[in-house]
Amino acid sequence: MNFRETLSTVVRRNQSWLCVGLDPDLARMPDHLPRDADGIYAFCSAIMDATADLVCAFKPNVAFFEALGAAGWTALERLVRLRLGPPIILDAKRGDIGSTAEAYAHAVFTTLGADAVTLNPYLGSDALEPFLRHADRGCFILCKTSNPGSRDLQDARLADGRPLYLAVAKMARDHWNTHGNVGLVVGATHPATLAEIRRACPDMLILAPGIGAQGGDLEATVRAAAAGAEPRLIVNVSRAVLYADRGMNFAAAARTAARQLRDAINAALRAA
Amino acid sequence: MNFRETLSTVVRRNQSWLCVGLDPDLARMPDHLPRDADGIYAFCSAIMDATADLVCAFKPNVAFFEALGAAGWTALERLVRLRLGPPIILDAKRGDIGSTAEAYAHAVFTTLGADAVTLNPYLGSDALEPFLRHADRGCFILCKTSNPGSRDLQDARLADGRPLYLAVAKMARDHWNTHGNVGLVVGATHPATLAEIRRACPDMLILAPGIGAQGGDLEATVRAAAAGAEPRLIVNVSRAVLYADRGMNFAAAARTAARQLRDAINAALRAA
Repeated sequence: MNFRETLSTVVRRNQSWLCVGLDPDLARMPDHLPRDADGIYAFCSAIMDATADLVCAFKPNVAFFEALGAAGWTALERLVRLRLGPPIILDAKRGDIGSTAEAYAHAVFTTLGADAVTLNPYLGSDALEPFLRHADRGCFILCKTSNPGSRDLQDARLADGRPLYLAVAKMARDHWNTHGNVGLVVGATHPATLAEIRRACPDMLILAPGIGAQGGDLEATVRAAAAGAEPRLIVNVSRAVLYADRGMNFAAAARTAARQLRDAINAALRAA
Repeated sequence: MNFRETLSTVVRRNQSWLCVGLDPDLARMPDHLPRDADGIYAFCSAIMDATADLVCAFKPNVAFFEALGAAGWTALERLVRLRLGPPIILDAKRGDIGSTAEAYAHAVFTTLGADAVTLNPYLGSDALEPFLRHADRGCFILCKTSNPGSRDLQDARLADGRPLYLAVAKMARDHWNTHGNVGLVVGATHPATLAEIRRACPDMLILAPGIGAQGGDLEATVRAAAAGAEPRLIVNVSRAVLYADRGMNFAAAARTAARQLRDAINAALRAA
């Protein structure tokens, strides 16, 4: 099964469009866990176990693992290999040229074995191609990110009047999605922009981070992005699930938070 | 000493503006070396030993190490810790938001201990800031990269007539370089663009990859970028040095290639 098929299967089984972001921050992890690679493995694997039947995907962010060096990489490899059902979207935001992009694609899809990856489009088509050609994996291109600084380049107005993020969305739709495995990352902190991108790309998967700690509005996000007969939106939440409780009870608290978020997304989808 | 001071010291001592890129490709390494993390460590450390008195910096690209997983990260850590004199510019092209960018900055500057890093500007100011605030380290922002796909976004014409890469150069100059530790990455495959960026940013360091295998012209690059009393250009060469010979003699061949390149850069600087 390719990424999109795996995703659809899990969505149907779990009735969920919620993705839990795995951003293990040593400063915020439960107090009883060690502050090392074993600790972040224990933390993330417990969260994954507790929520695997409530989510459509997991999204580990490489940064938090790289911060612990080689031991962090080993922890990340072990998490990817758990294979609990929901596909792994590796939040890596990679982008490099030629043979280097090939090495990154190998690192992500072969060495780690992730099902999908996030990619930065600034270096253009040939930097993306070594990932895109893995037709069985998902590639989410950064389009309009959830942070305030996204205005610096992404909102830049082009000579034809379009903002850069819309040009990126259209390149993804017209040139990069030849294998049907491309999605877009659009922050939930910009519902109007999300609606504009959805109009331009009615069929593409949109991965929307920024709900919760970053202030994105869940109902507005679902309304803006989920056009079409089948929802084409993955709602990512990290901190509101991971850090629901920092005591011994953290995994059960994460499960409760994930269930509430899943149900809220489904209610918003029904109302949309 | 901060990055710029270390760089200046090494440039004076070695009379060199050549940076050797460490992109260890298993398919092209000397035949007698093992195709694993020990092999890439042996390969890169021999190249570094053989050229440390001929270069101004080394630039390992993380992709080739990540492709070997945790063992590759260990090899990269060992290379950074060799401390042969020339500073380490980690070619990571990172860019992420908020706490994630902080984790990457920790990974690069603290866990690995690199002297400088390459960064992707697509996510904007707040994604760069966790790196920039390390005033003793160098931050090279991707501006106009050496690959053909750089035209897709970087050449996009803005409403005011400027290409996006020039807007990035000016943001770097006016907003991101508050600690004096910011440089730009501009591919040597675009000498006219390099000259345009140099006019906009007369004082900033420019890291120019793309000489050699990628077809960049050394003399045109030096002429375009090295304005000012002191050269402000780092010329990166990877494959022409690394793969000068794939036999037992590879390190000596790399040394010969590095010396020729250093001398050619210096001759071009004198003629410019």
